[in-house]
Amino acid sequence: MTLGDFIMEIVRELNIRHMFGVPGDYNLRFLDYIVEKGEVDWIGNCNELNAAYTADGYARENGIAALVTTHGVGELSAANGIAGAYAHNVPVMHIVGYPNSSLLENDVPVHHTLGNYKKNNFLDSFSSISGAETILTAHNYLPELQRVISNMLTTKKPCYIGLPTDLVDMEISKTISHITFKRINQDTYRVPETTEAIVQRFKKAKRPIFILGINIARFGWREAVTKLLEKTQSKFVTTLMGKSIINETDIATPNYLGIYAAGYSSEGILELVQNADCIISIGTTETDMNSGGFIDTGIDCANVISIKPEGIKIGKELYMDISVEMLLEALQLALPKDLHRDFIFPLKPRDAIDVLSISKKPLEHSYFWQLIAERFIHEGDIVVAEAGTSLFGLLHQNLPTGIDFVSQILWASIGYTLPAAVGSAIASPARKVMLFIGDGSIQLTAQELSLIARHQLDITIFLINNDGYTIERAIHGPEQPYNDISMWKYLDLANALGIKKTLSAHTYGELITQEEQILSKGPKMVEVFFDKLDYPPLLKQISDQLEEANRQ
Amino acid sequence: MTLGDFIMEIVRELNIRHMFGVPGDYNLRFLDYIVEKGEVDWIGNCNELNAAYTADGYARENGIAALVTTHGVGELSAANGIAGAYAHNVPVMHIVGYPNSSLLENDVPVHHTLGNYKKNNFLDSFSSISGAETILTAHNYLPELQRVISNMLTTKKPCYIGLPTDLVDMEISKTISHITFKRINQDTYRVPETTEAIVQRFKKAKRPIFILGINIARFGWREAVTKLLEKTQSKFVTTLMGKSIINETDIATPNYLGIYAAGYSSEGILELVQNADCIISIGTTETDMNSGGFIDTGIDCANVISIKPEGIKIGKELYMDISVEMLLEALQLALPKDLHRDFIFPLKPRDAIDVLSISKKPLEHSYFWQLIAERFIHEGDIVVAEAGTSLFGLLHQNLPTGIDFVSQILWASIGYTLPAAVGSAIASPARKVMLFIGDGSIQLTAQELSLIARHQLDITIFLINNDGYTIERAIHGPEQPYNDISMWKYLDLANALGIKKTLSAHTYGELITQEEQILSKGPKMVEVFFDKLDYPPLLKQISDQLEEANRQ
Repeated sequence: MTLGDFIMEIVRELNIRHMFGVPGDYNLRFLDYIVEKGEVDWIGNCNELNAAYTADGYARENGIAALVTTHGVGELSAANGIAGAYAHNVPVMHIVGYPNSSLLENDVPVHHTLGNYKKNNFLDSFSSISGAETILTAHNYLPELQRVISNMLTTKKPCYIGLPTDLVDMEISKTISHITFKRINQDTYRVPETTEAIVQRFKKAKRPIFILGINIARFGWREAVTKLLEKTQSKFVTTLMGKSIINETDIATPNYLGIYAAGYSSEGILELVQNADCIISIGTTETDMNSGGFIDTGIDCANVISIKPEGIKIGKELYMDISVEMLLEALQLALPKDLHRDFIFPLKPRDAIDVLSISKKPLEHSYFWQLIAERFIHEGDIVVAEAGTSLFGLLHQNLPTGIDFVSQILWASIGYTLPAAVGSAIASPARKVMLFIGDGSIQLTAQELSLIARHQLDITIFLINNDGYTIERAIHGPEQPYNDISMWKYLDLANALGIKKTLSAHTYGELITQEEQILSKGPKMVEVFFDKLDYPPLLKQISDQLEEANRQ
Repeated sequence: MTLGDFIMEIVRELNIRHMFGVPGDYNLRFLDYIVEKGEVDWIGNCNELNAAYTADGYARENGIAALVTTHGVGELSAANGIAGAYAHNVPVMHIVGYPNSSLLENDVPVHHTLGNYKKNNFLDSFSSISGAETILTAHNYLPELQRVISNMLTTKKPCYIGLPTDLVDMEISKTISHITFKRINQDTYRVPETTEAIVQRFKKAKRPIFILGINIARFGWREAVTKLLEKTQSKFVTTLMGKSIINETDIATPNYLGIYAAGYSSEGILELVQNADCIISIGTTETDMNSGGFIDTGIDCANVISIKPEGIKIGKELYMDISVEMLLEALQLALPKDLHRDFIFPLKPRDAIDVLSISKKPLEHSYFWQLIAERFIHEGDIVVAEAGTSLFGLLHQNLPTGIDFVSQILWASIGYTLPAAVGSAIASPARKVMLFIGDGSIQLTAQELSLIARHQLDITIFLINNDGYTIERAIHGPEQPYNDISMWKYLDLANALGIKKTLSAHTYGELITQEEQILSKGPKMVEVFFDKLDYPPLLKQISDQLEEANRQ
C-alpha cells in the first residue's frame, strides 16, 4: 500500500464520499488516487474559495468533508472558507499538495512559493484558522495523521495536512488498522452527578424553557435533543444560529415558540425567556448577532444551565470535559414530563398571507419571506440563506418539518451560500435545496453556477436583485457609490454557465403563477426584484445596532 | 484633521489615484473618505481575491497600489493575491477595516471573527506573506504607518494596516509633514569602489553580456538600465520573468538577443551566455522556471556580476546595502562602449508567417503566438499573459517596443491575469491592454469581466479555449477527468456581464479577417479554439521538467 492509498482509506473510513478542490501540479498525483478507485467522487470547483465553501456545505449535511488544494496559490485562496468552517465548527480536512520533500528540506524557490522559501510559510497562515496542522514526512505520517484528524473529530475545526508530492506513491508498511481516531477529553465519569444536578433544578422550576443552538447540529446531538424534547414536551426556542435545528412545526415536538436572540428575538420571546426560572441552553454560541448585540437582557445567570462542547455550566458551577452525548442520553431517561406549570404563552400563529389581495403589488421584504415560508419551502428541504436580506428575512419565519437551515451568522462571508448549496446538494441528492442569495453576494462566487448545471443538482436559486449591497446600505451609506454594483443579466449568466431554466418575478402574482415551475425538480434560477432600500425588519434592527457598535 | 484624512493624504502623497476592494461593515466609514474627496477613485471589485489581483496589476503600472478589505472574511479572501504581490515584489498597501478598538481590546466575539476572538488572528495569517504588518491604535498610528510604509517602499513587498472603524473619524494633531518614508539600508558610500570593480572586469572582457530580470521594473531601474545599454551598446538577454523589460526591437538598444533561462532559453542563447566572459546580471531572480529548472548550465560564477536589490556580487565578492540607483548612474558614466570584441552572434530573425498559406488551418500553438506577436501586439501595448499556454506561447516571441509584459512566472496563480489586466488598464488608460487567458484560468476570476464593461476599459481578451486545464494536462494526467472543466458559453458570459463586442475564430483565416475589429478600441472578447492536447513547445519542455521534479 502507498501513502496515497492509506489516505484514501482514511477518507472512506471517515464517510467522505466526495472530495472538492482544484487541480494543481503539486496535487495531481494524489488526485490520481481519488479518480482511479472510483469509490470517492472528485468534484472540481472553479476556484479554491468556492471549493472550501462547497466542502463546508457538504460537511454540514455529511458530518465531514475533504478539500484538496495546491501549495501556496491554492491553499491561500481557500483561507477565508477554512476560517468560516473554523468559526462555525464545520470539520473540513484540508489536504494541500506540497512540492517534493527534498525541495522542501532545501528551501528551493520553486513556483507557487514566495521565492524566499521557508517550509512553514503557508502552514503558518493557517495556524489561527485551523484546529491542527501538519506537513507529512516519510517518518511522521502515522502519528501526525492520527493527531490532526483526532483533533478535527473532537473540536469539529478544520485540519490542515501538507502532502509532499513525492510521498503520495511511497510504499508504506502500515494499514488502516494501525490508526485510531479518538475524541479527546470526553469523560463519562461525572455524567451521573451532572444529570442529577440538572434534574433537580428542572423539577423545581415552574417555568422551564430550552434554548437550542447550532452546535446541536455540528456535534451530532440533534437526534438526542429531539428525543429529549419529545419526552419532556418542554417549550423551546432556538437562537438565530440554531434556526430549524429542531422541527418547528412537528407534532412530536409541538412546543417551538420562536427565536431567542435577546434584543433580536421574535415577537414575545424575550419576555418568555426573561420570565423562565430554568433555562436549559444547549449548543448555543455567543456572538454579536446571535446574542442580540450583547444587550443586557435581564436574565438571571443563576437560572441558566448551559450545555456546550467545551463544558457544562449549572448556575455558577462549571463541569469540564463531560461527554455531552452521554449526558443527553442520561437526561432523556431522567428528566420528567414538563407540565408547563404556570408558564404563559401569549403567542398565536400569524395569519397566512392572502396572495390575491396583494397579487399586483411589487415584491417587498415585509410579505415576501412569509410567502416563501408558506408556499415555496417544504418538508425536508435544505434552506440555504445568504447573510444579507435573505437570512434576515427568513429567520423570523416558521419553517416546515425536517428542514436543514444553512447560513453563516457569525463568519458572515458574503458569497458563501452559492457554493455551500452545491455542497449540500451533493451530500443529499434526494433533497431539494432552496437557495436565497442577493445580487451583491452572488457576484463573489457566481462561477459555481456551472457546477450546479454540470451535476444537474436539484437547486432552486432565488436571486434577490436589489441593485447592490443592501445589507451594507442598511448599516452605513445607503446612497454611497461604494454600495453600488454592476447590474448583470443574471438569467443570461445562468444560461451561459449551463442552467437552462430561468424565471423572474416583480410582483407576488407573477411569483405565485409560476409556483409549479419553481418547485419542479432540477437546477433553476428565479430572479426576484426589490427596491434597493427595502430591508427586512430584522435586518434594519441589527444593522442599526452594528452601526452603533462601529461608532462607539 | 481626522485619521481618515491623514491616511488619504498619505495615499495621495504615494501617487495612488485609485483604490480597489470590496465594502464591508468595518471599512464603510473609511470608504466615505475615499469617495467624498473625489481625488482618488474607488473601484469596487466583485470579490477580494480579484481586488488584490487588480491592485497588483495597477501597481505594476503605477508603481504602487492600495487595497481595502474588511476584517476576517475580506482580508483572508485576498491572501493569495497578497502573497503573489509579495513573491513578485509588487507594493500593495492593504488596509483592513477592523472592528472598533474597544471590542478588539476586550476580545468580543463580533461577526467576521472566529468566535474565540484574538486580536492578532488574521494579522498572523499575513505575517509570512507581507513585508510589515500593524494594527493602528490612537497612540501608535504615526510611527506604525511610517514603519510599515517605509518597509513597503524599500522592499516592494505588500504591507498590512489594520484600521479599527472607530479611529477613522478620530481627530488627530499630526499632519502629513510629520511623517517621512525613508528607504532603509541604502548606502552610497561604497558606490565608487563597486563601480570601479565592475568597470575593470567589463573592460577586460572580450565577450560581455547583460542578463536582465524583472526587478529592474519592480525597483524602478528601467530608465537607468535602458540608458546604460544605449551607452554601451552591449548585447543583452532577459530572463523569462524579465520578458520585454527593455525594448526588444528598439533602434536605441538594438542588441536584444532573446531569452536566457538555462535549459529553457530561446534558440542559441544558452551557448552565447555560456561563452560570455563577463555576465552582468541585473534584477534577476532564481526560481525553478526562471532558472531553467536549476539545471547546471556551465556558467563560471567567477564571470558573473550580479546586481540585485538585496546586494551586489562581483565574482565571489559581496557588497551589501549598496544603493543600486546610484550604482547604475555611476556605471552609465563609467562603462565604455562595448565593441563586441570577439563575440559571435549566430542568430537570425525568424521568417514572418505566411498567413495565406495556413489560412484554412485550425489554430495551433506552433504558429498562433508568432502571428499574435506579428499582427496583434503593437508598440506601447500592455501584454498580460496567464501562466498557462498563453505565457509559454508568448515568451519566445519577439515583441514590439515599449511593451509592458505582465505575468506571474514564480507565483503562477491561475486566474490572476483577468483582474490584473483590469488594474493595468485603470492605471494606464491611454494604452491598449491585450490579455491572453485560457478557459480553465478565466473560470477562477471571471466575474471581473463586469468591471471591464463598467469602466469601458480598452482591453481585448483572447480567450484560449482548449477545453480544460491544458497546463496541468502537460504536466500530469492529460486525459484524467480532474483536468476537465465545464464548457461555458464564454461569449454569452461576456455579454451577460456587459461586454457587448465578442468575436471568435477557429482558423488563422478567421482570425486575420477580423484583425481590424479585434484591434479597435474598447472592451471585447475574442474566443479562439485549440485542441486540448496541443501545447506550446516551451510549455511541454517546462512541464516535463516539473513532472520530473515532482517525482524525484
